[in-house]
Amino acid sequence: MNQSAPSLDTRAARIVALDTLDVRFPTSRELDGSDAMNPDPDYSAACVTLRTNHPDLCGHGFVFTIGRGNDVQKAALDALSEHVAGLSVDAVVNDLGGFARRLTGDSQLRWLGPEKGVMHMAIGAVVNAAWDLAARLAGKPLWRYIAELSPEEIVAAIDFRYLSDALTRDEALAILRAAVPHRQQRIEQLLAEGYPAYTTSPGWLGYSDEKMQRLAREAVADGFRTIKLKVGLDAADDVRRCRLARETVGPDIAIAIDANQRWDVPDAIAWLKQLIAFDIAWIEEPTSPDDILGHAAIRRAVAPMPISTGEHTHNRVMFKQLFQAGAVDLVQIDAARVGGVNENLAILLLAAKFGVRVFPHAGGVGLCELVQHLAMADFVAITGRKEDRAIEFVDHLHEHFIDPVVIREGRYIAPTAPGFSAEMKQTSLRDYAFPQGVAWQTDSGA
Amino acid sequence: MNQSAPSLDTRAARIVALDTLDVRFPTSRELDGSDAMNPDPDYSAACVTLRTNHPDLCGHGFVFTIGRGNDVQKAALDALSEHVAGLSVDAVVNDLGGFARRLTGDSQLRWLGPEKGVMHMAIGAVVNAAWDLAARLAGKPLWRYIAELSPEEIVAAIDFRYLSDALTRDEALAILRAAVPHRQQRIEQLLAEGYPAYTTSPGWLGYSDEKMQRLAREAVADGFRTIKLKVGLDAADDVRRCRLARETVGPDIAIAIDANQRWDVPDAIAWLKQLIAFDIAWIEEPTSPDDILGHAAIRRAVAPMPISTGEHTHNRVMFKQLFQAGAVDLVQIDAARVGGVNENLAILLLAAKFGVRVFPHAGGVGLCELVQHLAMADFVAITGRKEDRAIEFVDHLHEHFIDPVVIREGRYIAPTAPGFSAEMKQTSLRDYAFPQGVAWQTDSGA
Repeated sequence: MNQSAPSLDTRAARIVALDTLDVRFPTSRELDGSDAMNPDPDYSAACVTLRTNHPDLCGHGFVFTIGRGNDVQKAALDALSEHVAGLSVDAVVNDLGGFARRLTGDSQLRWLGPEKGVMHMAIGAVVNAAWDLAARLAGKPLWRYIAELSPEEIVAAIDFRYLSDALTRDEALAILRAAVPHRQQRIEQLLAEGYPAYTTSPGWLGYSDEKMQRLAREAVADGFRTIKLKVGLDAADDVRRCRLARETVGPDIAIAIDANQRWDVPDAIAWLKQLIAFDIAWIEEPTSPDDILGHAAIRRAVAPMPISTGEHTHNRVMFKQLFQAGAVDLVQIDAARVGGVNENLAILLLAAKFGVRVFPHAGGVGLCELVQHLAMADFVAITGRKEDRAIEFVDHLHEHFIDPVVIREGRYIAPTAPGFSAEMKQTSLRDYAFPQGVAWQTDSGA
Repeated sequence: MNQSAPSLDTRAARIVALDTLDVRFPTSRELDGSDAMNPDPDYSAACVTLRTNHPDLCGHGFVFTIGRGNDVQKAALDALSEHVAGLSVDAVVNDLGGFARRLTGDSQLRWLGPEKGVMHMAIGAVVNAAWDLAARLAGKPLWRYIAELSPEEIVAAIDFRYLSDALTRDEALAILRAAVPHRQQRIEQLLAEGYPAYTTSPGWLGYSDEKMQRLAREAVADGFRTIKLKVGLDAADDVRRCRLARETVGPDIAIAIDANQRWDVPDAIAWLKQLIAFDIAWIEEPTSPDDILGHAAIRRAVAPMPISTGEHTHNRVMFKQLFQAGAVDLVQIDAARVGGVNENLAILLLAAKFGVRVFPHAGGVGLCELVQHLAMADFVAITGRKEDRAIEFVDHLHEHFIDPVVIREGRYIAPTAPGFSAEMKQTSLRDYAFPQGVAWQTDSGA
């Protein structure tokens, strides 16, 4: 599809179909994504396209999964078809809040969550596809499209239900309005400087010590100021790997660790006390993503080691409580877990109000492409902060995207093509479609 | 299928297939299930059968939904097929804990939750079907099958991951062992007395005041000691309906109310203060089921009105926190929301440890049939308490079940047929299959 803004009369444009596709990459053959909870992921995407009656105008989104169950996600996307088919494109892009509430507010579908799991992720992907459509129509990359909406337009996109004890519409408006005078200067700054990245590439559990050290050295040489190691399978291994990593990168590079939900609360506390000596930047997902009080207990017990979670936090109500409980020092957001751009804007505003830094989750397939837009919109329109935070980066599977991320000197370069960078190449969609694509014909895969 | 215990040699029995069916009842045509969040439910079940190579031996389970999305639940059930096809029946029924962990522990499927939403409910239904199979093989109703397992067998079925800061395996064992000497006497007591029920039948929002009062009078005449009213659409209406209900049933009948997640925290507090005068037995689901801290805040603000939630609480980690935070005075459990009997046993043991009463959620289609077994197993093998609690009852759709609940004088009569009472009649499955059944041919339904 044409990446430039379609120059067409969209007044009569309608969404004619919601197309879906099950796409899987056989990454488990290489162990590149191995961690303590996910030993053999096949990075996958349940893709959705909002197709219009204009051949050059589509909106793209996807749910990221790690293999089995991608077909269930596709079924959930298909179930939303009746809510979007026939809608006027203008009506959708001019009321993205109403569009999202049309999906999250379906009382029958809501029973399947509410606002969590398969159904909520499907809604998020369709909502993201609508934002992609809106940004393409406006001829802007999504980060800039959001950052140039009025504060009133942004809050209109947000569902404040269940948030008013922590963040009201008026408080959100005040945060957004305070940023308005700085927007233009921040846009220029972002285009000139990029946004800090950190890398998880050295740290997968399947790697040897030597490979980890080599990749850590390369990461520093490439300009990254933070690296992340996966932990949680064996405490002695983790002590050794953290020591080796610290020796390898020296005292000035931040080292984060990620347990991918491996521990119970008492185990997390005992394990992490052994790693305090290595000046850990943060411990990510020490326990169940649902365990708000557990994160708070761990944080109290291993202070000053910073605690974080968020990539599996399923909606804004859970983020609200993480902040209210003082359970985290920083959070991840994920572009394809919650109910789309709208809910992530709510989460970013909550984080801003509570003064919690955001280090977006990425990697997998396409998560870097998506989440960069949210972090950059946050910088311009919400917090004005970027040098005290960073977006995760994994150098993996970007070749399948039409508008892949660009990393230079350890920083994400701001995208300039219109849209949400979510569209995959037709050849990739064809070759990795599951199970019929050629990538799945050569052997049995998982 | 034969309801008596199949007398066959099961040593060679294997599960040969996981059969699924989308079954929907057009209940929205009557508004019988209307509440503040669910105006037009079509009570539905995504049914699963563990079929074996013995024609008389099957295990039945289902996910309850309220209409749209039941096909997504069916797809999630189908995704579990590869985990069960070919398994030995003996191996499954002798290690129901391992069977459940085989499903919840699939790291790729786990990404779709973890342990929440569509995928977790599907796992729960398959796990429940395995318990049905086990109880049928043993020739016992499920409540009795559980109640006659050893404490060691019960804890072996439970996944204590993420619970150890609140309930250890040893603590659970101690609770179960303390009940062992009383089991036989409690079984006899249960068979003689039944288990208290309460009824929601008078309280749907779609009903007129006159219909509500008439049904409330009938409920009292039928022996119910607690009724429940739906609230949350209009405060003045709720004040009037609570006053009318109190005038109708007098001071000795408990009146509970249920807001079905309608309010934000500040709204809940303001609204409920208007209803304190009517001596409310509990307010159920005042806000988002995810909002543990919100429930705690509401509870502090409207004391002594008892607070409850649970029918949408998605797993044991959330129940753990409701108890740790002192967020609730009592909880609902739901037999078809969490990861099956195993996880409900964990939740019942947590509730016992924290001294929180359980009022199981039922209604919909088949939820009464299922959850009675869990409440009765709790009475015999865990708490020994039943007169200070009650199981919800709605007199609806029971005619579709082969072993329907029996209510007498406001009490559930203990089932005696082998199994989990989950099996629907073949005629019902045929007529209400969606969209091909005759019930969906006569008009367009929803």
